[in-house]
Amino acid sequence: MNTFRLVISCPDGIGIVAKVSGFLATYNGWIIEANHHSDLSNGQFFMRHVIRADSLPFDLAGFKQAFSPVADQFNMTWRVTESVLKKKVMLMASKDSHCLIDLLYRWHSNELDCDIVGVISNHNDLRSMVEWYGVPYHHIPVAPDNKQESFDKVTQLIEDNNVDCVVLARYMQIIPPALCQNYAQKIINIHHSFLPSFVGARPYHQAAQRGVKLIGATCHYVTQELDAGPIIEQDVVRISHQHSIEDMVRLGRDVEKMVLARGLRYHLEDRVLVHGNQTVVFA
Amino acid sequence: MNTFRLVISCPDGIGIVAKVSGFLATYNGWIIEANHHSDLSNGQFFMRHVIRADSLPFDLAGFKQAFSPVADQFNMTWRVTESVLKKKVMLMASKDSHCLIDLLYRWHSNELDCDIVGVISNHNDLRSMVEWYGVPYHHIPVAPDNKQESFDKVTQLIEDNNVDCVVLARYMQIIPPALCQNYAQKIINIHHSFLPSFVGARPYHQAAQRGVKLIGATCHYVTQELDAGPIIEQDVVRISHQHSIEDMVRLGRDVEKMVLARGLRYHLEDRVLVHGNQTVVFA
Amino acid sequence: MNTFRLVISCPDGIGIVAKVSGFLATYNGWIIEANHHSDLSNGQFFMRHVIRADSLPFDLAGFKQAFSPVADQFNMTWRVTESVLKKKVMLMASKDSHCLIDLLYRWHSNELDCDIVGVISNHNDLRSMVEWYGVPYHHIPVAPDNKQESFDKVTQLIEDNNVDCVVLARYMQIIPPALCQNYAQKIINIHHSFLPSFVGARPYHQAAQRGVKLIGATCHYVTQELDAGPIIEQDVVRISHQHSIEDMVRLGRDVEKMVLARGLRYHLEDRVLVHGNQTVVFA
Amino acid sequence: MNTFRLVISCPDGIGIVAKVSGFLATYNGWIIEANHHSDLSNGQFFMRHVIRADSLPFDLAGFKQAFSPVADQFNMTWRVTESVLKKKVMLMASKDSHCLIDLLYRWHSNELDCDIVGVISNHNDLRSMVEWYGVPYHHIPVAPDNKQESFDKVTQLIEDNNVDCVVLARYMQIIPPALCQNYAQKIINIHHSFLPSFVGARPYHQAAQRGVKLIGATCHYVTQELDAGPIIEQDVVRISHQHSIEDMVRLGRDVEKMVLARGLRYHLEDRVLVHGNQTVVFA
Repeated sequence: MNTFRLVISCPDGIGIVAKVSGFLATYNGWIIEANHHSDLSNGQFFMRHVIRADSLPFDLAGFKQAFSPVADQFNMTWRVTESVLKKKVMLMASKDSHCLIDLLYRWHSNELDCDIVGVISNHNDLRSMVEWYGVPYHHIPVAPDNKQESFDKVTQLIEDNNVDCVVLARYMQIIPPALCQNYAQKIINIHHSFLPSFVGARPYHQAAQRGVKLIGATCHYVTQELDAGPIIEQDVVRISHQHSIEDMVRLGRDVEKMVLARGLRYHLEDRVLVHGNQTVVFA
Repeated sequence: MNTFRLVISCPDGIGIVAKVSGFLATYNGWIIEANHHSDLSNGQFFMRHVIRADSLPFDLAGFKQAFSPVADQFNMTWRVTESVLKKKVMLMASKDSHCLIDLLYRWHSNELDCDIVGVISNHNDLRSMVEWYGVPYHHIPVAPDNKQESFDKVTQLIEDNNVDCVVLARYMQIIPPALCQNYAQKIINIHHSFLPSFVGARPYHQAAQRGVKLIGATCHYVTQELDAGPIIEQDVVRISHQHSIEDMVRLGRDVEKMVLARGLRYHLEDRVLVHGNQTVVFA
Repeated sequence: MNTFRLVISCPDGIGIVAKVSGFLATYNGWIIEANHHSDLSNGQFFMRHVIRADSLPFDLAGFKQAFSPVADQFNMTWRVTESVLKKKVMLMASKDSHCLIDLLYRWHSNELDCDIVGVISNHNDLRSMVEWYGVPYHHIPVAPDNKQESFDKVTQLIEDNNVDCVVLARYMQIIPPALCQNYAQKIINIHHSFLPSFVGARPYHQAAQRGVKLIGATCHYVTQELDAGPIIEQDVVRISHQHSIEDMVRLGRDVEKMVLARGLRYHLEDRVLVHGNQTVVFA
Repeated sequence: MNTFRLVISCPDGIGIVAKVSGFLATYNGWIIEANHHSDLSNGQFFMRHVIRADSLPFDLAGFKQAFSPVADQFNMTWRVTESVLKKKVMLMASKDSHCLIDLLYRWHSNELDCDIVGVISNHNDLRSMVEWYGVPYHHIPVAPDNKQESFDKVTQLIEDNNVDCVVLARYMQIIPPALCQNYAQKIINIHHSFLPSFVGARPYHQAAQRGVKLIGATCHYVTQELDAGPIIEQDVVRISHQHSIEDMVRLGRDVEKMVLARGLRYHLEDRVLVHGNQTVVFA
């Protein structure tokens, strides 16, 4: 079933819901999902509607045109997407395969509603697995002295494929600032700690050192500041003195996979609204 | 801040949200919380709005009168409550104090928005603790041969206090059918198992016998069928072979307390909508 | 690092630990993991040691011979296994791939310490995925009128491969009693409910019907009574009114995968001791 | 049932378990609980035994004397405690009552095995609740200009009561270095964040600012460095954009209570072994 997803953020006020739902009712729009959030701490209002496309008399361009005056009236930041127009996703990975293969599997079994247009890796290890899924594999090595050149190639590939969303599925390289900026809120990373604890390298070693009793993973949008972007999803798993760092890595893999898959799903279904460095997630 | 809570259930259709939000906008109602749910499996629609009372030009009676025509048009089952009119709650307990005292403490620290009008117990053990909280304690023994008489007294107390909600905080007696019926969806029980597993007596013993790896608790509305009413909230805690039945009872107490407190909170804030034997909980 | 795993169950008494650890110390055995459990409710004692093989002067046969007198003295039920002698595992699946592929992936990335000798399925759908992992795929259809014949083939395959452990990774057929008996505590099933709730077919539909707030999965040894064998591991995930049965199936898949992978891991590492219909799991 | 708890930490090696269990068997000691941990990363060995006191021919002093040679042989750090000799606990609180009352309730219902010898607070608000439990209440105000004097009184009270363990149940003052040192591994704090995130003041505000999706609490031993001591127990609860800081405070209270109660229980039962800044918790 094709649907429109109308996602809105604006200063809170009287009559917004009435106006939007009135607009939809005018055109006999059949709402199958609706979420609202009034943030009383900053006066911002957030809204997401899912409407059956076949209930409305217009296509995506028509929807945009018809809705624009309403949006202008309330000074809305807004977007409308159509579910049949799947987001084009580029996956990036290094040598660890768990997040990458998990996403490919979920996509292959129709759990993730997107087109995966390719995998970029700085290593060649995961080629065979990826190609089993029929997805193009791009091996772009990143050496300390060729970073600029490598990321030029990465950027080119992203642009050539009209990518809507880049997923860093344990891609262990730092993304250059220009790419971060040009794809703001379009690059999703999984960090293997419960942020803001243990930013940067070897978070499980940091966790073992501090002696925490739970380890976690964080899915967030990438910004220029390392591991500091808006958080989409997090989760944890219990550990104890019994667990070596190898055990933590093993247990952490499952948390990373789950958190990234959930976070990406929210993103793909337009459930995430960013406001400042925080997110509203209509899960 | 005084608020109205408008809670609606009706057959799904086009224009319901528009009509309701249009109604609220007409009167300049300031919506601070809104939830919607379309159940695609049975075509039922559920909605809850919280509106600042000071933004509307009418009182509770006026609200009801003004909204009635809208409700009639869509064949709504609905209610509107006013947050300053706190629900009157009667607690019932036996000898175990953990759920009872937990609720009294939460009420005393303004976490539960209600008036606790009394505690009824078939034992006298908990009197001193209850009276410290300034709550009347009614000792109504229940012997096998005086059940009718005892529950006549219980019913009288409930009626005399204009009780809106009865909470069975580990009250180990079966409630007579008439009381269940007259207070349908107003009597809340905590059962110390993850229902539908381990209905009836000694659920922790049943759980130990079956060798489960998690034990739980269930908060539900009481119906005439034992432990079979609509479920409001559930949770579990992990156990292992290390845990004796005494340990399970101890760990279970915390789950019971938490689940009952959450379930009651949802009920008091009109977040629970019953449909058939299922609930929509706008948590 | 090769290790011996010594797993013991016997009536509790004074001096058992001293005797066993004395035995190990006599031969300079280097214990790297030790677990004990005294079940005070039934007077049974359980113990598991992991000992570095290179610290002991004998091989597996020698270990057995040397330890036998100690075992006899305390009337022990015991086994000793050697970690380099990996258990031979036969996976069985139907059309759903999530559990099967998850196990293959974990095995392929050295997370599960076993030899996967083959996959048996009553359908041919998963052949390509399985064969990518280099594992033989046996398609043995099961029609209502050829069950005996089909399971004769299954049994033959299991015997021909000297299988130590059969994993029903969402194999939707009932295992014949003879196979259950001959491979007691060697056939592991994943059931997609939190047992003992929702035994049998379509547990997610049963769960939706009852309106539970958590759904779960159970990994257990298969016995002749359906879904009633000793439980190895369980877990749950929270759901709400928002979740359709399709959502429950999707969320449930992740719980099933995790629970089966953990349960199988415990079994492979000889962490599970069965006593009656209960398990001691030294996780 | 009176028990001895023998708790040992020493450099790992061959024959330690044999020696200790041999010692216990020599005297016919009935072990009802035994835990071992070999930390392969640092070569340290940890062990805890619970032995029925009535099975041994000596009292606590006799136990110590008899065991000393064994301990010396393996260079053990060790202690033995007797369960009937309950630890004397001083609780310290400020204005928030949730942790304090939770501990008093658990103690009163025999869930915490200790003597609570008093409550020290820098405010007088909680006197009545505490005195209902029959526990002495000491009001020692702490003003910016009288800290030294106040903590002299606190220290005096702790010493006069022969306190074994001090619990900071949301006591919002920083403990002076001398007290930290003199009661090393005897002062337990609950911090209302998932450490090491959000050290110091107003952690829920910090958490809201960062936009995390889970909030937590940490129970740890107090050292001179703020919120940096060895962690005993942690847990988290899920939050979303719906939750205001007030909601986070409310939800956090339950996590704080549970984490502190579990951590204190582990400490009272001698289940916690500190090594460097990490803990082994035989839960």
